[in-house]
Amino acid sequence: MSKPVLTVGMIGYQFMGRAHSNAYRQVGRFFDLPCDVRMKTVCGRTESAVKEAADQLGWEGYATDWRAVIADPEIDIIDISTPGNTHCEIAIAAAEAGKIVFCEKPIGNTLDEAERMWAAVEKSGKPSAVFHNYRKAPAVALAKKWVASGKLGEIHHFRARYLQDWIADPEFPMVWRLKKATTGSGALGDIGSHIIDLARHLVGEFSEVCGMTHTFISERPDGQGGRDQVDVDDAAIWMARLGDGTLGSFEASRFAVGRKNHNTFEINGSKGSVVFDLERMNELEYYDNTEPTEQQGFRVIQATAAEHPYAGNFWPSGHIIGYEHTFINLLADAFSAICNDQETSPNLYDGLQNQRVLDAVDRSSESRSWVKI
Amino acid sequence: MSKPVLTVGMIGYQFMGRAHSNAYRQVGRFFDLPCDVRMKTVCGRTESAVKEAADQLGWEGYATDWRAVIADPEIDIIDISTPGNTHCEIAIAAAEAGKIVFCEKPIGNTLDEAERMWAAVEKSGKPSAVFHNYRKAPAVALAKKWVASGKLGEIHHFRARYLQDWIADPEFPMVWRLKKATTGSGALGDIGSHIIDLARHLVGEFSEVCGMTHTFISERPDGQGGRDQVDVDDAAIWMARLGDGTLGSFEASRFAVGRKNHNTFEINGSKGSVVFDLERMNELEYYDNTEPTEQQGFRVIQATAAEHPYAGNFWPSGHIIGYEHTFINLLADAFSAICNDQETSPNLYDGLQNQRVLDAVDRSSESRSWVKI
Amino acid sequence: MSKPVLTVGMIGYQFMGRAHSNAYRQVGRFFDLPCDVRMKTVCGRTESAVKEAADQLGWEGYATDWRAVIADPEIDIIDISTPGNTHCEIAIAAAEAGKIVFCEKPIGNTLDEAERMWAAVEKSGKPSAVFHNYRKAPAVALAKKWVASGKLGEIHHFRARYLQDWIADPEFPMVWRLKKATTGSGALGDIGSHIIDLARHLVGEFSEVCGMTHTFISERPDGQGGRDQVDVDDAAIWMARLGDGTLGSFEASRFAVGRKNHNTFEINGSKGSVVFDLERMNELEYYDNTEPTEQQGFRVIQATAAEHPYAGNFWPSGHIIGYEHTFINLLADAFSAICNDQETSPNLYDGLQNQRVLDAVDRSSESRSWVKI
Amino acid sequence: MSKPVLTVGMIGYQFMGRAHSNAYRQVGRFFDLPCDVRMKTVCGRTESAVKEAADQLGWEGYATDWRAVIADPEIDIIDISTPGNTHCEIAIAAAEAGKIVFCEKPIGNTLDEAERMWAAVEKSGKPSAVFHNYRKAPAVALAKKWVASGKLGEIHHFRARYLQDWIADPEFPMVWRLKKATTGSGALGDIGSHIIDLARHLVGEFSEVCGMTHTFISERPDGQGGRDQVDVDDAAIWMARLGDGTLGSFEASRFAVGRKNHNTFEINGSKGSVVFDLERMNELEYYDNTEPTEQQGFRVIQATAAEHPYAGNFWPSGHIIGYEHTFINLLADAFSAICNDQETSPNLYDGLQNQRVLDAVDRSSESRSWVKI
Repeated sequence: MSKPVLTVGMIGYQFMGRAHSNAYRQVGRFFDLPCDVRMKTVCGRTESAVKEAADQLGWEGYATDWRAVIADPEIDIIDISTPGNTHCEIAIAAAEAGKIVFCEKPIGNTLDEAERMWAAVEKSGKPSAVFHNYRKAPAVALAKKWVASGKLGEIHHFRARYLQDWIADPEFPMVWRLKKATTGSGALGDIGSHIIDLARHLVGEFSEVCGMTHTFISERPDGQGGRDQVDVDDAAIWMARLGDGTLGSFEASRFAVGRKNHNTFEINGSKGSVVFDLERMNELEYYDNTEPTEQQGFRVIQATAAEHPYAGNFWPSGHIIGYEHTFINLLADAFSAICNDQETSPNLYDGLQNQRVLDAVDRSSESRSWVKI
Repeated sequence: MSKPVLTVGMIGYQFMGRAHSNAYRQVGRFFDLPCDVRMKTVCGRTESAVKEAADQLGWEGYATDWRAVIADPEIDIIDISTPGNTHCEIAIAAAEAGKIVFCEKPIGNTLDEAERMWAAVEKSGKPSAVFHNYRKAPAVALAKKWVASGKLGEIHHFRARYLQDWIADPEFPMVWRLKKATTGSGALGDIGSHIIDLARHLVGEFSEVCGMTHTFISERPDGQGGRDQVDVDDAAIWMARLGDGTLGSFEASRFAVGRKNHNTFEINGSKGSVVFDLERMNELEYYDNTEPTEQQGFRVIQATAAEHPYAGNFWPSGHIIGYEHTFINLLADAFSAICNDQETSPNLYDGLQNQRVLDAVDRSSESRSWVKI
Repeated sequence: MSKPVLTVGMIGYQFMGRAHSNAYRQVGRFFDLPCDVRMKTVCGRTESAVKEAADQLGWEGYATDWRAVIADPEIDIIDISTPGNTHCEIAIAAAEAGKIVFCEKPIGNTLDEAERMWAAVEKSGKPSAVFHNYRKAPAVALAKKWVASGKLGEIHHFRARYLQDWIADPEFPMVWRLKKATTGSGALGDIGSHIIDLARHLVGEFSEVCGMTHTFISERPDGQGGRDQVDVDDAAIWMARLGDGTLGSFEASRFAVGRKNHNTFEINGSKGSVVFDLERMNELEYYDNTEPTEQQGFRVIQATAAEHPYAGNFWPSGHIIGYEHTFINLLADAFSAICNDQETSPNLYDGLQNQRVLDAVDRSSESRSWVKI
Repeated sequence: MSKPVLTVGMIGYQFMGRAHSNAYRQVGRFFDLPCDVRMKTVCGRTESAVKEAADQLGWEGYATDWRAVIADPEIDIIDISTPGNTHCEIAIAAAEAGKIVFCEKPIGNTLDEAERMWAAVEKSGKPSAVFHNYRKAPAVALAKKWVASGKLGEIHHFRARYLQDWIADPEFPMVWRLKKATTGSGALGDIGSHIIDLARHLVGEFSEVCGMTHTFISERPDGQGGRDQVDVDDAAIWMARLGDGTLGSFEASRFAVGRKNHNTFEINGSKGSVVFDLERMNELEYYDNTEPTEQQGFRVIQATAAEHPYAGNFWPSGHIIGYEHTFINLLADAFSAICNDQETSPNLYDGLQNQRVLDAVDRSSESRSWVKI
């Protein structure tokens, strides 16, 4: 009668850890899951801090050694919410211990890491998940449904930008996200990976890319009176061929003053177009090219009705959900798939394919020419 | 073979005179009219100024006595673009001389004036026009078409606001538009009359109103170091019953800081809704309630395609027109109707009906109760 | 060392009960509260349903008799989330039992009920809260801050509309919200009360109102093949004088096709204007009239930065929150005030003042004239 | 006392000829020019059609041989509004005859043509103009002023798209704009040239580009039951380095369903950002990064006030102008410069520099690598 329980241990508890914790707490409140979720252990290096985090975020207990979490036989799922340079080791260890791996994106700091991670997960025979959460916004899921059903016709264009501005100030100090050793790449991997995932999800695989990356500010205050070298990109622009004859144009930047979280895409198909912007994530713009000309126009659909993906699990039409709900939806899908022995999506293979594109953009930027995926 | 010619004499040459002159010059360039238009005489009191205006605005000649213009046998149409306190006398004289009267709005400063004006025009048997130009924006004409065809279903709500802010500064000086003797009323007659016209045009006649008017700043600099009394309203708000069971809500203000020309209405019908805003006058928002819920949303129609009213006379789809074009469209309709012996719309009877509503709002404000029209 | 605990019993568990439960669960996760919150008992009439609700919504236990909940000495707070016709009896009983009353809006079905409720609460000497949650949206709180600081100057206009469309279809069946006996009034009390609260909160008390109410569809399917009489308003429109010389215009309707949750207001002050729309509740539009004209315009502020009210408790700038968070913020304020012996806001006195305005609009509609508050 | 007269002969009278004619007629009505403009001759190959065009568009007379127009000693200015394949010969002949050349864009069908045209114009010592009219929209001129004054700080990003959809339908027939022989290139030259001009004007010269072009539909109905080969691009995407360290991203397409005239750019500087969209051409979005965070947001400036470039020549604030007015403004600037012996802008040198970028994008697309300008 009672549901099976999936027990989670989470490594890391900063921004992503907070978002994941919230989703674990909330997912069963809004979705009728085939399992119960137990938030057993959160793990971090500093005991006092992780203890407080456990309490604040709703974990039963805490640990300071991630290997101990993996070694815990009660734990089914290892959630990796740490900076990128630690993903690979943790994920492989978790997979080898037979755990289900849930991992932040981009999964590795290099393509080599990503390949080894996927190999370990594949070998384990266990499901996995990668936190490309924006797929799970109701408006994006609606776009996916329409592309898949042919409602938009043949897809000619996919253009996406993920723009932020948090380091546009030259005096913004050095942080781990600006160091290749910890993070792999800059805007490209951090936010460019999200628009790559949306492109893959909505339109199909990349066949070739040609890109450029650029660092506007190469030295930043180190917080101790000196300067430290930035060795990742501040911005990346790339063109692509993807899907079945779609032209792609992409841009990721942390220097777009005024853009806080401007993750936006536009799909132009032969029968219609859609536009999404994360800053108004409950909305999908849609243009229907099959109507009488007189009444054609881009409409703003509030994807908050019971008829829209995920939305019926929350509030009545017109009552919006927030950023954090994309993680709730992602977990709802993941837990459903896992309990029903279906394929999770997105999973670590998606993480790997994503990294292949990131790697190709990087190489293209260096070779100043097109690179096939 | 050659077309008949309609010859115009225009009284007044300020803001409205400039807009009318442009429309007379341009209407034959964009519309295939059944007549030619001759801009013979512009009339003003100051000879040097009116001479310069004639040259600048494209009139053959000028005059300083409006009675001489009316007396000119070559002139068919008297265009009245002067302040409101002079309309009545000029219009009646013109009508009695057998001229076609084209008059700015509101047609009179009082209901009594408007009644006498319409009586004179009706007696003359000549057509007339009133410059309620916003009816003629393509987007408004599209809305009209849809209400008339039943596409929007039964009309439950009409809500309109015309908001400006040009006198919000208490130090803005006294001008003729703030004196009852010259202008009749304030925001109510000046801009409120436009939303009354749109309501009548789109939904139907008013049956009763209940309103309030208010003057925020009762004294203003007189330009000579003193202060002068404002005796017209700065803002007016009114409720109404109109058309066939429609509830109306209206607001006109010159104190809505940030609103420059915010002439906006929303119509809610049982089958759909439309929204218009003059500041984006090429656009009509439309919500179609008959579609599948999943894809419902307010769409922004750019009413610039050949399929839209008037728009095909100008530029290709997506190339917008401006404020002045509403006057061109109004004249195109007026000249067509006149030459084809059809009823002009809007005409001085519309001016009279409009004034009946203005008058009722004024009386309602004083009596603090509902007033039937 | 450990925090005091406030223990809650909630009566009712439908839409509002779900939103309240979520807020009780989440408030301590995002705010550093001076107390802990214990969700002890949820109460409903149908045992199987309330049992399931308790489990789903996170309550320790359940009850089927609200009097038993009030009688529970462990419970500090009675949360009333039931239909309006039951509020009065429960609230008075709770107050008389020395409980803190948290109540949904409008607090009573009549002004008399509201007066008795407030009298009981006042007599109890206990704090109270009313769920006018929209005050607590970060964008609204920002507007409040600016009005209070004088940043917008003298407030000339407050115009608000709360538009929905869920009963625009004549075949939408009879529900309790369409019966005066259960709900007191229709659109007026349900959604009109929200814009009254925002007006009071942002601009000040109402001094007089003049309004109209209307029922478009007077009979609806009763679900058993017959028809049942609607005896509440479908729409209400009213004008008001409020605050310190502000003109108010208000509209609430359930027949505005396409408007799902269009709770919007615009404030025009002498120095600036703000506009809010609940459907984009993370945004506040602001026009600054003190800047150089060249650069003036309505700006869209995303009230999601750490500098904005409440927003720093959630996610980084540009990551939006949803409808439910307004309840979290409301509880955070309420618990803070209660534990620090400060006045809660909004409380049942706000509920009473709100009801005085609702009552005045109703009487004005009947008398067809202005009514003083 | 009387002004000098500049006499114009225009070759071609289709879409562009109509827009130019309107501008010649109107420019003196709205601007106080240092010269009078005489519209003497319009030229086209088909006598009956050009005769009608002369009458409709306001030209004194017509001609069927462009060489005769150039030979007319009364004519000062040759306006070239014909398809691209005829520009070069006409422009060189006009320049050699000592005429002022006003030419549509792109000036030639090849870089070689453009170079020869500019050489001839330069040798003639006469001024020239190219119809990159969008520079002259008030909102764009405001952006230019701010970039030039440093108000936006260092310019990090320029991203532009010019999207249309008029050939997205595979059954849209063959027209001259789809044939390389007549038009040089497709979307790239037709609309891509406009965003190149805006980039050069606003940010500075291009130093290198990397692009792709694509033809989605390679055969179209020839109007006689057969199919004809499209040999120009349907879409072009390119990256660039331009100005003083600015990253550029560009896209031009005729397959962006729903986009009618979506000529849009965004400039991100260190101190602020601006966004423009031709479909709302009276507006400029502006984000000021120097304000307190609390009140930062993208504002919509209606560039219609007397304080905005060009706008004071038309209507009061809030009364929008249309597409055609950009040509009026361009001519006003050109005639002012010519009569005051100042440099015209944009002129045929701008046309040449533009063509160098077009040519580089084309070569880059073929070589699949970066090309320096």
